[in-house]
Amino acid sequence: MVRASVVLVAALLTSVFIAGSAKMMQPKNVMEKEIRLALLDEIQGENIKANLRVLTKEPHQAGTEANERVAKAIEDMYTAAGLQKVHTLTYDVLLSYPDWDQPNTVAIRNPSKGVDIFKSKGVTEPILPDEQGAPHAGHQWLAYSAPGIVEGDVVYAHSGTPTDFARLKEMGIDVTGKIAMMRYGQSFRGNKVAEAQAAGARAAILFSDPAEVAQGNRDDVYPKSIWMPPEGVQRGFIMNGHGDLLTPLYPAKPGAFKSKTAEEAKAEKILPSIPAVPISYTTAYEILSRMSGPTVFSDWQGGINVTYRLGPGLRDGLKTVVDVKSSLQNRHIHNVVGYIPGHDEEDRYVILGNHFDAWVYGSIDPNSGTAILAEVARAMVELTKTTSWKPARSIIFVAWDAEEYGLIGSTEFVEEFVQQLGGRAVAYINMDCFQGNFTLDANAVPSLIDVVIDVAKRIPNHVEEEVQAGRKTLYDTWIRTNPGPNGEPDIKPLVGGTDHVPFLTFAGVPTIDFRMENTTRKSYPLYHSLFETPFVNEHLYDKPDFAMHRSIGRYWAEIARTLADAPLLPFNVTRSAEEMHSNYVVELKKALAALPADPNLDEAEQQIKMLEKASEKFLYRAQHFSTHALLVKDDDRKLRGINERIMMTERCFLNPRGSPGASQNRHVLYSISDKDTYAGRVMAALYDAIDDYVANSDKKTSGRAVAEQISIIYHAVHCATNTLKPFL
Amino acid sequence: MVRASVVLVAALLTSVFIAGSAKMMQPKNVMEKEIRLALLDEIQGENIKANLRVLTKEPHQAGTEANERVAKAIEDMYTAAGLQKVHTLTYDVLLSYPDWDQPNTVAIRNPSKGVDIFKSKGVTEPILPDEQGAPHAGHQWLAYSAPGIVEGDVVYAHSGTPTDFARLKEMGIDVTGKIAMMRYGQSFRGNKVAEAQAAGARAAILFSDPAEVAQGNRDDVYPKSIWMPPEGVQRGFIMNGHGDLLTPLYPAKPGAFKSKTAEEAKAEKILPSIPAVPISYTTAYEILSRMSGPTVFSDWQGGINVTYRLGPGLRDGLKTVVDVKSSLQNRHIHNVVGYIPGHDEEDRYVILGNHFDAWVYGSIDPNSGTAILAEVARAMVELTKTTSWKPARSIIFVAWDAEEYGLIGSTEFVEEFVQQLGGRAVAYINMDCFQGNFTLDANAVPSLIDVVIDVAKRIPNHVEEEVQAGRKTLYDTWIRTNPGPNGEPDIKPLVGGTDHVPFLTFAGVPTIDFRMENTTRKSYPLYHSLFETPFVNEHLYDKPDFAMHRSIGRYWAEIARTLADAPLLPFNVTRSAEEMHSNYVVELKKALAALPADPNLDEAEQQIKMLEKASEKFLYRAQHFSTHALLVKDDDRKLRGINERIMMTERCFLNPRGSPGASQNRHVLYSISDKDTYAGRVMAALYDAIDDYVANSDKKTSGRAVAEQISIIYHAVHCATNTLKPFL
Repeated sequence: MVRASVVLVAALLTSVFIAGSAKMMQPKNVMEKEIRLALLDEIQGENIKANLRVLTKEPHQAGTEANERVAKAIEDMYTAAGLQKVHTLTYDVLLSYPDWDQPNTVAIRNPSKGVDIFKSKGVTEPILPDEQGAPHAGHQWLAYSAPGIVEGDVVYAHSGTPTDFARLKEMGIDVTGKIAMMRYGQSFRGNKVAEAQAAGARAAILFSDPAEVAQGNRDDVYPKSIWMPPEGVQRGFIMNGHGDLLTPLYPAKPGAFKSKTAEEAKAEKILPSIPAVPISYTTAYEILSRMSGPTVFSDWQGGINVTYRLGPGLRDGLKTVVDVKSSLQNRHIHNVVGYIPGHDEEDRYVILGNHFDAWVYGSIDPNSGTAILAEVARAMVELTKTTSWKPARSIIFVAWDAEEYGLIGSTEFVEEFVQQLGGRAVAYINMDCFQGNFTLDANAVPSLIDVVIDVAKRIPNHVEEEVQAGRKTLYDTWIRTNPGPNGEPDIKPLVGGTDHVPFLTFAGVPTIDFRMENTTRKSYPLYHSLFETPFVNEHLYDKPDFAMHRSIGRYWAEIARTLADAPLLPFNVTRSAEEMHSNYVVELKKALAALPADPNLDEAEQQIKMLEKASEKFLYRAQHFSTHALLVKDDDRKLRGINERIMMTERCFLNPRGSPGASQNRHVLYSISDKDTYAGRVMAALYDAIDDYVANSDKKTSGRAVAEQISIIYHAVHCATNTLKPFL
Repeated sequence: MVRASVVLVAALLTSVFIAGSAKMMQPKNVMEKEIRLALLDEIQGENIKANLRVLTKEPHQAGTEANERVAKAIEDMYTAAGLQKVHTLTYDVLLSYPDWDQPNTVAIRNPSKGVDIFKSKGVTEPILPDEQGAPHAGHQWLAYSAPGIVEGDVVYAHSGTPTDFARLKEMGIDVTGKIAMMRYGQSFRGNKVAEAQAAGARAAILFSDPAEVAQGNRDDVYPKSIWMPPEGVQRGFIMNGHGDLLTPLYPAKPGAFKSKTAEEAKAEKILPSIPAVPISYTTAYEILSRMSGPTVFSDWQGGINVTYRLGPGLRDGLKTVVDVKSSLQNRHIHNVVGYIPGHDEEDRYVILGNHFDAWVYGSIDPNSGTAILAEVARAMVELTKTTSWKPARSIIFVAWDAEEYGLIGSTEFVEEFVQQLGGRAVAYINMDCFQGNFTLDANAVPSLIDVVIDVAKRIPNHVEEEVQAGRKTLYDTWIRTNPGPNGEPDIKPLVGGTDHVPFLTFAGVPTIDFRMENTTRKSYPLYHSLFETPFVNEHLYDKPDFAMHRSIGRYWAEIARTLADAPLLPFNVTRSAEEMHSNYVVELKKALAALPADPNLDEAEQQIKMLEKASEKFLYRAQHFSTHALLVKDDDRKLRGINERIMMTERCFLNPRGSPGASQNRHVLYSISDKDTYAGRVMAALYDAIDDYVANSDKKTSGRAVAEQISIIYHAVHCATNTLKPFL
């Protein structure tokens, strides 16, 4: 019964904001549909392709002069597009670089003869020299690795998860003093290195296993296909946390105080203390083919054509040598910002963002997104010139720097403007890069799911065979390839790892993060490799007309237009309440019920009851609010108040007191667990407390910690319920 | 030069909101001046007098049934007045009570004979039994004292400040194991007991010295005068902190999780671990007249007619016995809330508050304020019935419970509604009680000083001799008796100790706190004594027409009307910026310049430079903003955005990360230092860091802590500057 009325109200709301936006916020002679079609029409694949070529001329890691040139290019694009107040925001942050003259290497040494029988070059050779031939482009490294030379015995630790290290321990294989060799996948690389360090390893080697990155025929690799070629290497950062390490919670404005030192960050395990290096699967073969020790568990065997062994060490007394020459350096980074000022409410922001720093050329990650965003900006400004349309609210375009080093540009921005974003930002819509070319995949907070779905229904499908099969919109393919519960696509509130994280978890701004992907995989094989240059976009993922890139731009632009123009913000608060009441609380009750009976959990049980009642009230109030919102939809004066209540309800789930030991992670529902930076577990702090209770012998204290975490969510739900009312 | 333009803009702003409020927010046929005069006229002394009699029928400590009856009486008054949505908000909090059957006592014992040669009754006898004769009304106690019987030697520790204990130490007098006897005054009583405990004392005795409370002839005391009679005792609480002890940062809603235990609060020195008891000056005489040891420093001598000695101990081997039978108890408290809904913006709140719980009958503290506030409510509602006036914004009336136990009712309220108050509250205006009857004294954040002054100029003076001398308004007497710099009355941003504290320091809501006082003193002699019954109001402080009480009501009501109606909020942001730039930063530079040269302060010097530049920008931006605000004053649509910027600028000085070790104290300018709960030192956390630097031998760490505190203020100023702009 509840469900039915929810759907009804949601449907009514949708029709209201579409009708309303034409009637109230637009000059009367412009119809909403015409504007929408004109906007979709205006976005051009050719422009995106040209932008991409400009952005990917040279490798451009954050903090380098090359990346400053890219920032300048974006500034020029934004200015040429006609954005207003185009400017850069500079932060002084801690980055990390290899020694460009002495590449990091992995060697196999015969200690008795004092010679290396194998040594990796540490540099990948270009395959298309015209696009990939810049000096130092091929360097293989992991940002924030400790420098050092470690000679020792390798242990194969599979994916380097806590479970993997536990299995090694059960097998009696001691990692202490060894070099942990782990494959990419399953967890964030920074977690792998941290787990290896915690297990006592003195160095870490990460490799791309063909089982993940080269699943086809061994010859069917780049540039023939999207699979990783033999010498390809995945780069990336390996610190644990996000934002500038030395200025937690505050913006790293040049000259501002740095409350933390790198030594402190090491002591707190935020920075690794051991050297770590990434290698190709051909280099991995050199090691794996010489490994001694027992053969691996069957599920640990990878795609390299040898029998994987656990070690420790190589046959014949050979040793492995990891040689990392990296250093930490303070550098300036530069976010680029531009506006289309809102016609009715210049102080309400719909923010579109993508980062522009790359590990090498970055033609997929991130500059596919950068190129598209510049085109979205141009098209929207163009529309304000060729029609009488102006967005009712301000649309802000931001290109982030140093995302690849741990979401630094966006985190410092959010830390600088946290108060303004808390009060003024309607939503943040992130697109980092595509992962494939076939279907949409979007994550959003529950209240924005309607928008994410409705807009997808308005965007033509770029996949010809899908169109021929009758699936004419992005939505049609999406619902087919990613069906979720309730007859809707499967939409998650948050997945970590890109720039929407600080918006949602530190400022409480509702977020959407989307990408295009293939049906079978969540990443792409050439990820963070030298081979991400425009050739892959132009010939392997898209067609010459860049129809797929254009689809992304159209979707992004139409979401922005929808959120900027709707007189009544098209947030479905009833859906948030429903999610809390019928999903999160129900799951939580199950999780607690699964634990053995224990009086130390009595307080937790009491708090669950409080939370359950509060979520019932929240749902009731949300339904009542939605009905009320319809009644005042024509009252311009009251609309801003109603919209403010919608926006502020979302902020109730931000706990200004922070999570224990992680004061950045303030969202009580959607903060990322430090235990796995990639995961998107709902109410992570609470479930971490339950895990601690299970693992901990002090049941009294850990039981109380569970109760406390539930009570924090209870208070947030109570706040949301109150915020929907005009009075206290 | 800067100064001149600031004054000009402020003057323009003032004229705008007065003119504007009539023009824009009111029905056109009602003039602003008529409304103001009608409101002043409507407030009646007789009503206040009648209210006071109702509220002070019986002793009503928080958490007692008697106080529930008072809450009900207020609810009835609010309802009868015509307030809307009248309701109570209940919290479950930790309070403290004596054993009503076994009073706390202080005795002088002859241990060799095993007899008490003196023992206090522990109960003050009524002087006017008709008003003061309730059972247990005279009990002498301090809330949150530990229970216990301590027999030992007394040391006289003067006012119990850190300096006082340091002087005792210099004299070679060891307080360890002794009973510290201290007089009221100079510092908060909770700090005195904490200092005594820290010095090793096993018990504490607090007494009211005639030098403070009975300065006239010994016979010229209550009921003949306002001076404390011989057996009078000041009650009060002695915990360190505010709000419910067991639920820090979160509202103590019934059933909600309690994150702290009383044992933890004791270990953290929030609750005292030693017994403490208050005594009269006649009981104090019994001890002081028998004291041994050296005579006190000349400035430690008090007004009891003996030569004060330091001790330790009494002559002839006599011992002192403190016997406290108190207990901690969880009780329900009830705030009472009522509304006059805003006609234009129901979701913008001007909040008027006063507490209603008392130590005994509370006819001054707090029910003079309670009685007045109920009359203000009645008068304002009446005006909405007899004229076409309605306030543009909502006016909320709140009667707080358990203020006397540490601002508990208001703190729990702010903790419950912190998000809504952060976004919606225009201002909180507190009036606890009068301290005298002659002149106004008001504290306000800088941006509200104009309002506090302007309104005082519109309220007729109730002091006949002042009117005859040509001082016709409250302002005229105020500026004569309390002249400050710049030709204005001396107005402080914040003084601790009453219910505006959580609004300002936890929610960032701009506050005004005011009272009526005499020219020579900041408190009144009968403070927290049995003798605060209506007789003192009716015969010692006011005349039968209650003209002084009425003046308070008129001032309160007119501030509320001004803030509720002005289309452009009458906050002077330029004054905030000026205060920061020309006062706080200048003083801070002086304080740092006074320290010996030390490279460990280089970072602090660098941060001062950052702060100085930021405050210049803030001032420039504020002036620019004020000019801009004048330009849009007629644009209804933009006004709400402009007002939002004014409100949110204030919130920038709230640091959601909290002060080190005191996460309740989030206001970086006006939070109260834990070192003296009564003091109102600006930027207390920063000056505490400077004090620590001076006292600490680790100059590197403590120097960095100073730099960090300055940087926190720098970030707040930067936030305020940004908030004044519509864009980021």
